[in-house]
Amino acid sequence: MASIKDVAREAGVGVGTVSRAINNTGYVSPATRKKIDKAVQKLNYTPNELARNLFRNRSGIVGVIVPDLDHPFFSCLVKHIEMQLYKQGYKTMVCNAVGVSDREREYLDMLERNIVDGIITGSHCLDGEEYLRHEKPIVSIDRDFGPKIPIVGSDHMMGGELAAELMIRDGRKNVLQIAGVSPHILANERHLVFQKKLEDHHVRVRSISMDWNVFSWEAFYEAARNLVDGYSDIDGIFAGDLGVVAYMNMASQRGMHIPEDISLVGFDATSVTKMVYPHITAIRQNVPLLAEVSVNTLLDQIEQRRDILHRQILNVEVCYGGTTKAEREGA
Amino acid sequence: MASIKDVAREAGVGVGTVSRAINNTGYVSPATRKKIDKAVQKLNYTPNELARNLFRNRSGIVGVIVPDLDHPFFSCLVKHIEMQLYKQGYKTMVCNAVGVSDREREYLDMLERNIVDGIITGSHCLDGEEYLRHEKPIVSIDRDFGPKIPIVGSDHMMGGELAAELMIRDGRKNVLQIAGVSPHILANERHLVFQKKLEDHHVRVRSISMDWNVFSWEAFYEAARNLVDGYSDIDGIFAGDLGVVAYMNMASQRGMHIPEDISLVGFDATSVTKMVYPHITAIRQNVPLLAEVSVNTLLDQIEQRRDILHRQILNVEVCYGGTTKAEREGA
Repeated sequence: MASIKDVAREAGVGVGTVSRAINNTGYVSPATRKKIDKAVQKLNYTPNELARNLFRNRSGIVGVIVPDLDHPFFSCLVKHIEMQLYKQGYKTMVCNAVGVSDREREYLDMLERNIVDGIITGSHCLDGEEYLRHEKPIVSIDRDFGPKIPIVGSDHMMGGELAAELMIRDGRKNVLQIAGVSPHILANERHLVFQKKLEDHHVRVRSISMDWNVFSWEAFYEAARNLVDGYSDIDGIFAGDLGVVAYMNMASQRGMHIPEDISLVGFDATSVTKMVYPHITAIRQNVPLLAEVSVNTLLDQIEQRRDILHRQILNVEVCYGGTTKAEREGA
Repeated sequence: MASIKDVAREAGVGVGTVSRAINNTGYVSPATRKKIDKAVQKLNYTPNELARNLFRNRSGIVGVIVPDLDHPFFSCLVKHIEMQLYKQGYKTMVCNAVGVSDREREYLDMLERNIVDGIITGSHCLDGEEYLRHEKPIVSIDRDFGPKIPIVGSDHMMGGELAAELMIRDGRKNVLQIAGVSPHILANERHLVFQKKLEDHHVRVRSISMDWNVFSWEAFYEAARNLVDGYSDIDGIFAGDLGVVAYMNMASQRGMHIPEDISLVGFDATSVTKMVYPHITAIRQNVPLLAEVSVNTLLDQIEQRRDILHRQILNVEVCYGGTTKAEREGA
């Protein structure tokens, strides 16, 4: 493979001149630039990206940390983040945190070692301090690290409100929600709002917690089995999509009727809510927009393009399926 | 941030000595090494990975190209590939090819520019020649590029055989399969074997093709609607998981009974086959093993660890659900 020295020799100029021409880092006369272009083409020279990045001290790579790439919300999110980064000339490195804080930490350390130019994190198992000690660009999805790290998330309070309204319209009186346990996560807000609003309407609400770091289908399926067996008196469930899909599956096995016996409301409205029959009524997060805003907020920092908004909260909406009696606004 | 020069000054040795010590590329006396270690710790020095990689001419990054990160087979595959690469000290860069050959080509070009040390590709839209002109390590999943690029895949012939046996045991006489159209893909073999075996048993088999580059749920759902409307006489379907899930959803809406009216057999047996009720009977690809073998085959090339097997074909098996009458071996 041709090197920059070969190009310089072929063009009859110095290596520094070739470097200035290729990296656009200083004046090179049009005539000299032409000679260099000719040499580059003749020798089929490809700049070594490692050398180039060392020079710019930028790798063109963004790290994305998610708890589980095989969870429908995160696979959709990473897909859209990759497409947004690609459009703006960046590559995507992914990390499955799989609940192991060491893995999350190692990816963060890549910031210091210049492997990635910035990180978008949707994972929550590492202490906030570990994120805060990094000076380099980070964007957090859904987790509040305080004023130093910009946060992008969905309006979980609105989500809780909309879900509660569906239960009220369905006339439910004894509802259960499956909530996470990690602190400083916007998602927690939807469960607080859901509970408050329903209790204001004299609906009984119980919450059960699942470990935040568990995202596998098997875990949800087991949890659903315990729910069906342990809470036979409930008439409504509000949970993440997979929790609701698992519960519905188990309820079908027991011959329950949906939505006659129980109202089910999911959160995220990923494609799995459309795969089951009836389709699940769910609060939709706008994943493509979440990806776009996260990527722009990160690249604004990396490229110092403009001031950063600290907190960007996106609207959510109800996607009506057949697991609530209320099927459309005002119905 | 401390540089290698600062470390050299602090330790009272030359920069070359520090580099030899840190990169383990030449003799450094134990006493000198101790001084350097002390300086590294005192200055909290982190080697610049870009500089280090330039030196080794290796980036420690592997590119993974898949058609769609949000398809359940590929999200599961990428998750396991990332975990395998991580275990062996490599990072994962992902590319959604999304049916655009330019994107696939650009990731391939990263091989030449030393951004990635190798590529694992599960995408099929770029011409084989474009892969073959690269001298650097590539592993192909499921697509046969000829002797130059090692291939790892599942035993699709066995898959077709097992699926045909299920239809025969269910007494089906008029079966439809949804097949891909891309050439040189192992997956095609399962459809040929399925058809041949069933026709040998006097079962009518029709095949419809879906575009290989379409992996979205919406596309499968639309295809299923056309199937239910256009092929009301069939009594069996063999297709990828999402095709079967979509068909089952549509069939439920029309009040059909499964498996009484029709036998459904999926391929992949991803978690979506367990989310619906009844669970779908499907031929399982061993995704964790597929990931492990692909990663090892690539790293064997990158690190020149051992001779490369050209073709590694993994077993598949039936996962029994409730969409066939035959529920277990010999039943």
